[in-house]
Amino acid sequence: MPEQITLYTAKICPWAHRAEITLEESGLPYKRYEIDLKNKPEWYAPKVNPASKVPAIAYGGPDVSPDTPSPESQKIAESGVLIELFADLSSSPALLPTDPVARARARFFIETVTPLFAGAYRGFIARGEDPQAIFKAVEVIQGLLPAEGYAVGQWSIADAAVTPFFARAEVALTNDLGVYEEGKGKATWAVLETDPKYARFRKYLHDLKSRDSFKKTFHPEVIINSYSKQYVRPVVQAHA
Amino acid sequence: MPEQITLYTAKICPWAHRAEITLEESGLPYKRYEIDLKNKPEWYAPKVNPASKVPAIAYGGPDVSPDTPSPESQKIAESGVLIELFADLSSSPALLPTDPVARARARFFIETVTPLFAGAYRGFIARGEDPQAIFKAVEVIQGLLPAEGYAVGQWSIADAAVTPFFARAEVALTNDLGVYEEGKGKATWAVLETDPKYARFRKYLHDLKSRDSFKKTFHPEVIINSYSKQYVRPVVQAHA
Ligand SMILES: N[C@@H](CCC(=O)N[C@@H](CS)C(=O)NCC(=O)O)C(=O)O
Ligand SMILES: N[C@@H](CCC(=O)N[C@@H](CS)C(=O)NCC(=O)O)C(=O)O
Repeated sequence: MPEQITLYTAKICPWAHRAEITLEESGLPYKRYEIDLKNKPEWYAPKVNPASKVPAIAYGGPDVSPDTPSPESQKIAESGVLIELFADLSSSPALLPTDPVARARARFFIETVTPLFAGAYRGFIARGEDPQAIFKAVEVIQGLLPAEGYAVGQWSIADAAVTPFFARAEVALTNDLGVYEEGKGKATWAVLETDPKYARFRKYLHDLKSRDSFKKTFHPEVIINSYSKQYVRPVVQAHA
Repeated sequence: MPEQITLYTAKICPWAHRAEITLEESGLPYKRYEIDLKNKPEWYAPKVNPASKVPAIAYGGPDVSPDTPSPESQKIAESGVLIELFADLSSSPALLPTDPVARARARFFIETVTPLFAGAYRGFIARGEDPQAIFKAVEVIQGLLPAEGYAVGQWSIADAAVTPFFARAEVALTNDLGVYEEGKGKATWAVLETDPKYARFRKYLHDLKSRDSFKKTFHPEVIINSYSKQYVRPVVQAHA
């Protein structure tokens, strides 16, 4: 019997989403517990994660209700740590290749693509920075991808790590959510969707989004609802 | 026969130092090639690491001279990726525990301690920020350490990842190198060396520094030389 896993997560959070996708792919049984980040339960920091962030897990120990975590379970946080842990716990399906060089390529993909893409798309939607940074990030990603398949061929935690950021960018931009000039989100995403230069990225994103692990764990309405409040476009004042 | 490993490194660089310590601990044979960061060979970026940083390795392929890297070897960069790779390549000695939870604790230690300690000590020496951040970081580290031994008990890549930062901080502060007020570096390190509150950290640092892998790969004179040029204390002008 595998040890019990309780995942503390939040639909809005891309880091937590990494853990959810990986758990779905792993086939490991787990309980999902939504943490309201705007109103965190007072037991969460002292009993689960002192950093008071999602994702975190309670691993092993008795089978208790998620809102009364047992002191006997192991508490583990940080999405990068968790997806490696789930890969260590699941050999079939393998969530990382067994070849050491392929494993290194998967980890390099995570380390490179996450800050590059997340930085570019957040700069655009949160601070109105130049969306060229998004295109540049996509070019780097295409340079790392093999001709076919996922980040290192077979699906791996490298794909779980980056999917949440791509999916949030698509929802934000296609709904024109961001502090940038009206229409610029849609226009930017349209380039990614039509320019032949980005065909490899498009195929990759399509493959990522086709997986059940993604469909089951992605909630676009939550993103739309939250981003429309968070990223408010400055009102342009008409001159009198 | 294990594949050949050529490590491109620089004595000054804490990230590269992580890889050197880990390779020394692994017993894997490797060739060391010093990259002069102030005057990088023109073949380095195109043939080894497009990001033009150390550390990077050439792995496998024919046994060539490091300054004429073969297109047949695998080129891999990023210290965090490399130390995991060396752990994947070396089962005896094991550079990570086999227990999945202990592996997760090792990775959590790396992810938490590196930015916390490196941020605190660099803030102090490069920007003259409050050294209290260093004491706070040391308290967090002590909270993560077991009662005895290394980050997760047995020595692991978690220890390799953080040692370079502790060692550089000690050299900088005990030599009073930094933009802070004269004497403040020595005074700060003296607290870490004498206050009973920091005894666990002191023991840990002592254990880290006692290892042959550290002694063989640390070059304090290089740090002193470089930091004294890089972090120049503003001259206090006497009023006429
Ligand atoms: N480095 C962490 C980042 C996790 C994180 O930042 N989570 C956010 C939500 S996306 C959080 O829980 N923030 C605390 C809060 O909102 O109070 C990881 O990779 O797990
Ligand atoms: N994230 C990288 C950081 C490596 C890095 O920043 N290396 C520096 C030296 S400490 C470097 O090579 N910089 C390029 C340069 O100095 O031109 C890693 O962990 O390997």
